[in-house]
Amino acid sequence: MSIPATSQTSPAPPQRTLAADLPSYVDTPGTEVRLDGWVHRRRRLSQLTFLVLRDRSGTAQIVVKDPDTVAQVEGLPEETTIRVTGNASPNAQAPGGVEIVEPVITALGEPSDTPPVELWRPTVTAGLPTMLDHAQVTLRHPRQQATWRLAAASLRGFRQTLDADGYTEVHSPKLVASATESGAHVFTVDYFGRPAYLAQSPQFYKQVLVGVFERVYEVGPVFRAEPHDTVRHLAEYVSLDVELGFIHDHHDVVRVLRDVVAGMVAAIHQDAADAVALLDVDVPEVAAELPVIHFTDALAIAGAPADEPDLSPAHERAVGAWAKAEHGSDFVVVEGYPTANRAFYSHPDPDEPRWSRSFDLIFRGVELVSGAQRLHRYADYVRVLEERGYPAEPYAAYVDAFRYGIPPHGGFAIGLERWVARLVEAENIRQVTLFPRDLHRLAP
Amino acid sequence: MSIPATSQTSPAPPQRTLAADLPSYVDTPGTEVRLDGWVHRRRRLSQLTFLVLRDRSGTAQIVVKDPDTVAQVEGLPEETTIRVTGNASPNAQAPGGVEIVEPVITALGEPSDTPPVELWRPTVTAGLPTMLDHAQVTLRHPRQQATWRLAAASLRGFRQTLDADGYTEVHSPKLVASATESGAHVFTVDYFGRPAYLAQSPQFYKQVLVGVFERVYEVGPVFRAEPHDTVRHLAEYVSLDVELGFIHDHHDVVRVLRDVVAGMVAAIHQDAADAVALLDVDVPEVAAELPVIHFTDALAIAGAPADEPDLSPAHERAVGAWAKAEHGSDFVVVEGYPTANRAFYSHPDPDEPRWSRSFDLIFRGVELVSGAQRLHRYADYVRVLEERGYPAEPYAAYVDAFRYGIPPHGGFAIGLERWVARLVEAENIRQVTLFPRDLHRLAP
Repeated sequence: MSIPATSQTSPAPPQRTLAADLPSYVDTPGTEVRLDGWVHRRRRLSQLTFLVLRDRSGTAQIVVKDPDTVAQVEGLPEETTIRVTGNASPNAQAPGGVEIVEPVITALGEPSDTPPVELWRPTVTAGLPTMLDHAQVTLRHPRQQATWRLAAASLRGFRQTLDADGYTEVHSPKLVASATESGAHVFTVDYFGRPAYLAQSPQFYKQVLVGVFERVYEVGPVFRAEPHDTVRHLAEYVSLDVELGFIHDHHDVVRVLRDVVAGMVAAIHQDAADAVALLDVDVPEVAAELPVIHFTDALAIAGAPADEPDLSPAHERAVGAWAKAEHGSDFVVVEGYPTANRAFYSHPDPDEPRWSRSFDLIFRGVELVSGAQRLHRYADYVRVLEERGYPAEPYAAYVDAFRYGIPPHGGFAIGLERWVARLVEAENIRQVTLFPRDLHRLAP
Repeated sequence: MSIPATSQTSPAPPQRTLAADLPSYVDTPGTEVRLDGWVHRRRRLSQLTFLVLRDRSGTAQIVVKDPDTVAQVEGLPEETTIRVTGNASPNAQAPGGVEIVEPVITALGEPSDTPPVELWRPTVTAGLPTMLDHAQVTLRHPRQQATWRLAAASLRGFRQTLDADGYTEVHSPKLVASATESGAHVFTVDYFGRPAYLAQSPQFYKQVLVGVFERVYEVGPVFRAEPHDTVRHLAEYVSLDVELGFIHDHHDVVRVLRDVVAGMVAAIHQDAADAVALLDVDVPEVAAELPVIHFTDALAIAGAPADEPDLSPAHERAVGAWAKAEHGSDFVVVEGYPTANRAFYSHPDPDEPRWSRSFDLIFRGVELVSGAQRLHRYADYVRVLEERGYPAEPYAAYVDAFRYGIPPHGGFAIGLERWVARLVEAENIRQVTLFPRDLHRLAP
């Protein structure tokens, strides 16, 4: 039976121009162009109306003089989607040096309701709860958009760095049979009538997959049933996970981390320069070698007692300030956290087992990354679980993998939202999260 | 206080060579090289032992003659991790034309236990349950590795295509307050004492984010509480989601889908050529324009009654065979599914509202992608929810977004595992999934 396939070609409308491409018409005034976007702002003067159109690339100025069109624009509230066909006209006063004159405007949908915040204002004036309650609209504000563009560029830089170095992207399951990180803060799922849990990290899977691919990374959600309401914790966030095998020690992992962060910074400069400019982001320099200090030295720098088991946020701020002053660095790696206080899979320093081959990366005074060389011997896992009094059963499948030759390995995890929060110096991590989840918030 | 940062440089071991790079030594015989990897196989002959080392790039042959080293290799079972230092020696019989002679071998961990399947055999002989029960080890088989490499390359091609075309990568929450796709097959989570759900798709978020970024994509897990045990459904899978605004109709979406699939195929050729060769994959050609037929024609082709509401798997097979025979295409787009039978947000054909502007992409006789132009007017959402008798409250935040100017838009979702399954012609989708989740399986 022969049926001709129908054509999938729609009637070709005039080619669309993005607002950011208007400057290319500065030498060809009068060219007819078509813009698609949102009514970002209208300003009615006595003789004319300025209409600012916003699209994914930026904004364009449209000059409306024809009385009928001026009247039409009255009925097109901010955020209405429109198509504008008109002539490009050089005007040094207009953004980009080119504006649109003699426009024909077509609404692409219904007139917009009044948004909960005025999106055309240069800065956001509404409070955080309003912004979050109406995120489906408030994310349109150019500063909110720009914040996420930093995140998206960072993801690209993360992957590019690792793709170029022999890593395999993996995706591990988020529904798991047991909580292997820390029993307490885990979400329980009704899994066909029996309990399952949401993965707090891909830790188990990325270690096991080192046995398969040697070098792996994953970008995906992780879930923490954080019962505390703080400005730097979320119940769900995007984790950038890396794990690599055949390392000498954790310093090999620190070097990869350095390269990854440098790649993220480079991608921000390359792909999100507009966002950097709009938000006036102080993008950090990443030195060829990050300063590394031992946990005991970090305590001394922070003026903390030598028997503290961990660094508090205040200690981290002190260490961050020290790195800036002494090394001119926004980054500092603290290594050698007490073994007893780190995750059970952390590898102890063979010479001084009370210190671990773990590290944190502190970025501008806040912990951004945790990493370590991991244990790789089956016997070590059996021993450490027994020492810590952990039940054997939930860890059985995990530990079993180490019976079959997992090489010396290590890795780290970067919290995407925390990275962006420090980049833009946000007071609250929710300001830089598309749709944050916490103790009180599950929507939108 | 001044504390010198300690050096993060480890003592430099001899530079590692990957197995795949050994051929570069064919003209410099005798060069000392170092390989790290797994004992893939040992073959003891009367005068010598062949040891095959496996690393992330492939395998290398090591010739062991020295009696002490032969004895040492006896104690290094398959899957033990080792370091081998030796001399590169051309041998036309060896894989890659170069083997390692006079090796010094160091175990990097404990001797491996005997794996549950013989990973050195060219093909997998164990049954699927054994493979899945021991996925942490069986994934190491070169054919299993290669299967996932097709997936990883596809992800790269997906993103490259969209990055080059103005799309913004997004990550939407997986914990949601209400199930917006289809109430039935949803997982419930205990969210700080109240119910939450695992997102069945990022549908709501990607539509809303068209209002922010115009063009978005997301790669992430989606969750379906599928109560059926079939060879093509999983309870958790990786969804490749795309949504774009300012379209004319769904044919604009089909064009993007075509480019994305072409990009995935190109990336497979570029980044996973070894996997294609090993698995003898018949990588499809992607024509500049995919054949598109209407749902009613698809029914006719399949010999189905004209009043069927949907295509069954058998119908899809018939349509796939027709596309191959008539158009020489592994792909065929079926458009115009009955509006009443598609998701409520599907846009009807304005000329014949009983048909929708939705489509499926059938790849080799199996539905791979669903897509559509979506409704973009607030009033349409209010109307359709009422017509279908859906409760208003769970959809309130979703529908609210359309009060603020969402442009005409559409999108699609590709199931990663289903794509790979069809590529390698797997009988069961679990064969190509790293750690599948289904009615019965939650581990490893």
